[in-house]
Amino acid sequence: MTTNETTAPDAALAAGWSDGFPTAGTAVQRPRDRSIFQAPENRWAFAHLRELQPTRNVSRGTGPVSVLPRAERPELDTLAFTLPADGSRTDWRSALATICADGAVVLHRGRIVYERYFGALDEHGQHMAMSVTKSVVGTVGAMLAAEGALDEHAQVRHYIPELATSAFGHATVRQVMDMTTGIDYSEDYTDPDAGVWKHARAGELLPRPAGYAGPEGYRQFLQTVQGQGTHGEAFAYRTVNTDVLGWLISRVTGQPLARVLGERIWSRLGAEQDAAFAVDGQGAEFAGGGLCTGLRDLARLGEMMRLGGAFNGAQIVPEAVVADIRRGADPARFALAGYTRLAGWSYRNMWWVAHDARRTFTAQGIHGQALHIDPEAEMVVARFASHPMAANAHLPTSMPAFRALAEHLMRG
Amino acid sequence: MTTNETTAPDAALAAGWSDGFPTAGTAVQRPRDRSIFQAPENRWAFAHLRELQPTRNVSRGTGPVSVLPRAERPELDTLAFTLPADGSRTDWRSALATICADGAVVLHRGRIVYERYFGALDEHGQHMAMSVTKSVVGTVGAMLAAEGALDEHAQVRHYIPELATSAFGHATVRQVMDMTTGIDYSEDYTDPDAGVWKHARAGELLPRPAGYAGPEGYRQFLQTVQGQGTHGEAFAYRTVNTDVLGWLISRVTGQPLARVLGERIWSRLGAEQDAAFAVDGQGAEFAGGGLCTGLRDLARLGEMMRLGGAFNGAQIVPEAVVADIRRGADPARFALAGYTRLAGWSYRNMWWVAHDARRTFTAQGIHGQALHIDPEAEMVVARFASHPMAANAHLPTSMPAFRALAEHLMRG
Repeated sequence: MTTNETTAPDAALAAGWSDGFPTAGTAVQRPRDRSIFQAPENRWAFAHLRELQPTRNVSRGTGPVSVLPRAERPELDTLAFTLPADGSRTDWRSALATICADGAVVLHRGRIVYERYFGALDEHGQHMAMSVTKSVVGTVGAMLAAEGALDEHAQVRHYIPELATSAFGHATVRQVMDMTTGIDYSEDYTDPDAGVWKHARAGELLPRPAGYAGPEGYRQFLQTVQGQGTHGEAFAYRTVNTDVLGWLISRVTGQPLARVLGERIWSRLGAEQDAAFAVDGQGAEFAGGGLCTGLRDLARLGEMMRLGGAFNGAQIVPEAVVADIRRGADPARFALAGYTRLAGWSYRNMWWVAHDARRTFTAQGIHGQALHIDPEAEMVVARFASHPMAANAHLPTSMPAFRALAEHLMRG
Repeated sequence: MTTNETTAPDAALAAGWSDGFPTAGTAVQRPRDRSIFQAPENRWAFAHLRELQPTRNVSRGTGPVSVLPRAERPELDTLAFTLPADGSRTDWRSALATICADGAVVLHRGRIVYERYFGALDEHGQHMAMSVTKSVVGTVGAMLAAEGALDEHAQVRHYIPELATSAFGHATVRQVMDMTTGIDYSEDYTDPDAGVWKHARAGELLPRPAGYAGPEGYRQFLQTVQGQGTHGEAFAYRTVNTDVLGWLISRVTGQPLARVLGERIWSRLGAEQDAAFAVDGQGAEFAGGGLCTGLRDLARLGEMMRLGGAFNGAQIVPEAVVADIRRGADPARFALAGYTRLAGWSYRNMWWVAHDARRTFTAQGIHGQALHIDPEAEMVVARFASHPMAANAHLPTSMPAFRALAEHLMRG
């Protein structure tokens, strides 16, 4: 159940990423002008980010591992369902393959009912969570706001004078946390000149062109972001908001983000593994997407959120913070972003909230990362993937797959 | 007893390495043309290597932490002794300061009798072990040799054809493991053009000059090393031997060195933390010096060696392998290296063996790293440091300090 079913180490390796690591001697070839986000290399890279980038540790502490009981449901692999987009039939396992899943863990009532690994990931590995990171950082931010350490009504410049002349300076902490800032910045993954990639080059997550003269580090990039539109009017999904929140968290706690996350959440979950946070050349975490975790540990985090913040014998996140996330934000502001596949949804404290009868809320990341929580079905799905496309091309398959799984598990 | 006694985060930070990380916003400044080995930055860098370099995880597994009972001996700080070099008096704590210690743990009969942290290290941190790494890798190599997986009489080219035309090709595995290879390579840390630094630049542990056209990665550097003298004649301390051994270990196991170390030793020690192994741009570990560990975990490793390989309820390293290390190599060959301060010593499986009445054997690293095992005194000292000088300028202080401590503990 926890085996990696592809030939070791990975099909992507055979496609040119490596000439035979570790036995052929020259080890992994990482061409310096290639992006970790490009297929087929992304499959190996997402499961080995810390071998390619500097990282800061997110400590699990030294306590015992929290037990996730097992109650395997082998029938899930062949669970069939219909894809609304074209009416075709597929099944859970095929859907994972379509998404290029690297692993999936399903919890039902806190028990592992399904666990599989593919590609370059195994149960001991850590995978880049991409924008699932945002929901984790958003949760920490919401905890600090609930304590009063971070005033959600204050403007960002109050805490970070360095951002006073950027568009973020006059945005409130709440606008940052719900991504309603009005900024001149593109999250279009298909445009190599989009702000999101400039941000990544500043942080050296992407290779830089020869003679690069852009910002050094994520935070220097944030200082260059200018305004467009009006803060607070509309939801607009933009990674840089999370990096501002990460900076805010560091500023008010006086600690690196990775340490705050470790102390407040990771060390209390009974996680199996430390997590890793990618950092830039200046030591700042990539708060918008740089967290790497074990898959079962991500599932533990989801289970904690499903249970109102209580897990492993402790109230890790205040119940009121989880309730606030689950209530969501204003769907009318969300609708202005034009996500036609997410009609009626909202985005609160960097979680996607469905406002549906299931009370679904999820964390999502490009290339197929997901932490999907279905409270009515008492189900949590943690999934890592390396889909070739950055955009959320997997959503038409993922959401029906999660729904079919939930309905099946609810039938008992 | 486990507090960090300098002002947070560290004096070196105030000296220009940072402008106030993490609270001042611009975070750690790592000038791209500076070496991590230079003071004062080395103090911060040695305790945060993974935040500056790609690393591979050395897993502690998921088992319980092995308990190190405590029996603090507060009098050790003021334990006075004479320095043979000039007859002056000092004490244990002053000696640690002289060495720029970042932390020291002393075990006596398996109990922690002393534990202190300084500089940028604390009990949760990991410090670069420098050449103490060699002894860890040498132990793994000796385990594989004892099993027959690695034939110590075979030539290196038998396992690594890529090294056939280098000087290592015709050296035997045993000559590599005891560092009696005859190679044209300098370990002179004061010479910026020494082989040891070319090796470091190949592995990107050191910044490269503009227009760098040298080898890419440690292993490509190893392929360039040519012969000088005769293999097997004389001991000569040269880091690259350990990188050849690391490559051999990966080759015969089909696994990255970090994984082999994790599976065979780290996961069996009941370590508190995962360790981290610095890797180059090709994914090869810096076997000669790139291991980063928690200080108590290093002490656990030393205790395991003191106890003949048995620790945490298991025979982790075969007793015969430890016995072979402790018997040492040929002091006559060692003497040819001209280490006047180490008269009568030898170097076996990458451990320094004193051949003294105490049956002392130690692992040593530049800038003051040490894992000192004194079987007669039932004492293990694990020490991390960031002395400004790479060369072993600390030896005239360290060895008398360890001896004084041992004699004191033996008195009861």
